[in-house]
Amino acid sequence: MEKQVIKVGLMGLGTVGTGVVRIIEGHQEDLLKQTGLPIQVEKILVRNKDKNRSIDVPIEKLTTDANEILDSPEIDVVIEVMGGIHPAKEYILTALEKGKHIVTANKDLMALYGDEILSLAKKNHCDVFYEASVAGGIPILRALSESFSSDRITKIMGIVNGTTNFILSKMSQEGADYHEVLAEAQALGYAEADPTSDVEGLDAARKMVILSTLGFHIPIKLEEVSVRGISQVTKEDITYAKNLGYEMKLLGLAEQNGEGIEVSVEPTLVHKSHPLASVNGVYNAVYVHGQAVGETMFYGPGAGELPTATVVVSDLVTVVKNMKLQVNGLGIASSYNEKKLKSDDQRFSKYFLRMIVPDQPGVFTQISQILAENEISLATILQQPKSKEKKAEIIITTHRASKQSFTMALAQMEKMEIVSEIKSYYRIEGGETE
Amino acid sequence: MEKQVIKVGLMGLGTVGTGVVRIIEGHQEDLLKQTGLPIQVEKILVRNKDKNRSIDVPIEKLTTDANEILDSPEIDVVIEVMGGIHPAKEYILTALEKGKHIVTANKDLMALYGDEILSLAKKNHCDVFYEASVAGGIPILRALSESFSSDRITKIMGIVNGTTNFILSKMSQEGADYHEVLAEAQALGYAEADPTSDVEGLDAARKMVILSTLGFHIPIKLEEVSVRGISQVTKEDITYAKNLGYEMKLLGLAEQNGEGIEVSVEPTLVHKSHPLASVNGVYNAVYVHGQAVGETMFYGPGAGELPTATVVVSDLVTVVKNMKLQVNGLGIASSYNEKKLKSDDQRFSKYFLRMIVPDQPGVFTQISQILAENEISLATILQQPKSKEKKAEIIITTHRASKQSFTMALAQMEKMEIVSEIKSYYRIEGGETE
Repeated sequence: MEKQVIKVGLMGLGTVGTGVVRIIEGHQEDLLKQTGLPIQVEKILVRNKDKNRSIDVPIEKLTTDANEILDSPEIDVVIEVMGGIHPAKEYILTALEKGKHIVTANKDLMALYGDEILSLAKKNHCDVFYEASVAGGIPILRALSESFSSDRITKIMGIVNGTTNFILSKMSQEGADYHEVLAEAQALGYAEADPTSDVEGLDAARKMVILSTLGFHIPIKLEEVSVRGISQVTKEDITYAKNLGYEMKLLGLAEQNGEGIEVSVEPTLVHKSHPLASVNGVYNAVYVHGQAVGETMFYGPGAGELPTATVVVSDLVTVVKNMKLQVNGLGIASSYNEKKLKSDDQRFSKYFLRMIVPDQPGVFTQISQILAENEISLATILQQPKSKEKKAEIIITTHRASKQSFTMALAQMEKMEIVSEIKSYYRIEGGETE
Repeated sequence: MEKQVIKVGLMGLGTVGTGVVRIIEGHQEDLLKQTGLPIQVEKILVRNKDKNRSIDVPIEKLTTDANEILDSPEIDVVIEVMGGIHPAKEYILTALEKGKHIVTANKDLMALYGDEILSLAKKNHCDVFYEASVAGGIPILRALSESFSSDRITKIMGIVNGTTNFILSKMSQEGADYHEVLAEAQALGYAEADPTSDVEGLDAARKMVILSTLGFHIPIKLEEVSVRGISQVTKEDITYAKNLGYEMKLLGLAEQNGEGIEVSVEPTLVHKSHPLASVNGVYNAVYVHGQAVGETMFYGPGAGELPTATVVVSDLVTVVKNMKLQVNGLGIASSYNEKKLKSDDQRFSKYFLRMIVPDQPGVFTQISQILAENEISLATILQQPKSKEKKAEIIITTHRASKQSFTMALAQMEKMEIVSEIKSYYRIEGGETE
């Protein structure tokens, strides 16, 4: 039976859902030209039908009962933009069981249950597209799954959380304090009242799970990502970083080599010559290194009603095209590579280290000895007195060292009497010194 | 009849062709996983079978006769990486007549005859993919045709020529002279012995034809692109630009609004806060502004054996997938929007203007009067004496003015006695002053 019109069930009518309705209604002609079929939002699942909204939707399209979408034989595609794990997961699995295709912006769900959802979709010949779940308006998942399909991706680095990038950019540009800028971000609506998920790196970690799973063809689990947030980053750290030629970024890193893979999210000093260093404010960017293609970067808005909704609708267009071609579900790639996580002695990085010591002879000798014993070689050293306290501050950057060595050296230094305080340490990315 | 293996005819075994052979041979397993079919390079068209090559190819695969590829019923896909218009065009048209799919990296051909080639392909249910023709390793054509398919693209700006970007970056970073750096670029192989096509902007113009045709759904002709190269750019211009907060870039610009479209390639002052300003060396970047998605940018290597070859092979993978789905040629979009080119009084830009005048009272009054009469308002003014010659140098930046007004004012100033010399003028892109 040839479809005459594609009917969509929309779950969620927040900012993204509203954008989706606006685009589908406002671009009917374009969509028709692209897919050959009119597309229509048939039902919208909301929590409250009587709420005041920024968009006019006929009340009969609204429902508070998910089954009006899930049980409707007329609805071909479910767009899930309600967020959260439950009941979004159950709705999506039920929709797939009923042969409906899914477009979702739900990073939490895809990071935690992507495997289960994609397997069921493949089995039922359904599409699941989730471009909007990572880096809002940036078509990075499509690039990874299509454009670089014949390449071997060795490294993915992402600034994939707009809230933390806004905070760090502001701290860097204005020399402002973390708590000050967080409060401003909350006032502007860039950070939530409870900012934990953003500032502690959890949101970024979920996105890195999605990116690395797709890029490496290996199912990565959230608990395999090592995560450190930005709440401990001080303006002093940022100032020292800048003086050394770096910008502080909450950087997602996924890397694979012959030994295995590593995925992490942590505040990182990114050298100013690296294209990621100049990604500021709420913008996102994903840097991909492929064995053949070399360095590429994708930059764009990380969130926002229209950017995210645009990407949702372009996923919808792909679903409709696939329906016409009767190829839904065929594009879902299985993870075919074996997973081998690197141990800490296989994870190498350059490091930045800042500590307070007594201002007395011989201190640095002891510190440099510990580093040497752990096979860490120094790249730059800055020692300066903190006159008031008869203390000195030491800022060190290292050449590449294993995480194991660095952690060990840190632990040893913390126990030393002559180390008053380890102020901070960060990974370093980019720049010439290797 | 189900295909057991996909046989490819390769036309050209230069750097890109060599890369294609390497990737196809080196990634057999990956390609098989992605397409379900083994892919094999069956014949390679070369000029000289006995030439020494950096790659080992069995001599029986080489041919100097294009018909061995075109007439072979076994060959499903022709990859054209020989370059040039003739005979590449004839080969491609013949291949399409015979139902073979095309992957090409040939920007000259696609810029000049893209319409003819794509129409024939559509008619014959053949694919033509040409991602590698613009910005080597950057999957920008796929992004425009798929990811932003539901958006309305309003602006495309590109640094799409690596040679000129290398030259301008070097001039900016080292304060070096144009001719000096051009010679260095030639020595490094980044510029050809006859660099005209690159430095005069023709290469960039061809790429902008391809980008704007696809992005705006309007067939743009090469002669509709206004083009100015970089051979007149001096190190003084670059220094002044930097002091004002700009980087000099050879910028391709394609813009559309309610009044019409404009496409140009010219040296442009790009504000340092704009993501394009930090694209240096032989890297390319394409900035896309969509009504919904907002600002996005795609960054990557503009050329090179492996980046370009990777993109060629990913186009090949798409062709093979389409063959399995029997949907070849269906994805070729017709240009459905009406073409209306903006006239010069509809093209607005900020401008930079540098001139030499006698160092005497009243000069600036006369110049500012001419600008005012042409409805051009000043943003910044710098006047400084050139002591040796009793002359002064005036550097002006303007707010947005029409190209017609600016051209008129320029012509009037050139006739003025008090203007000794108009040194240079450039468009300005980015920055806050509008």
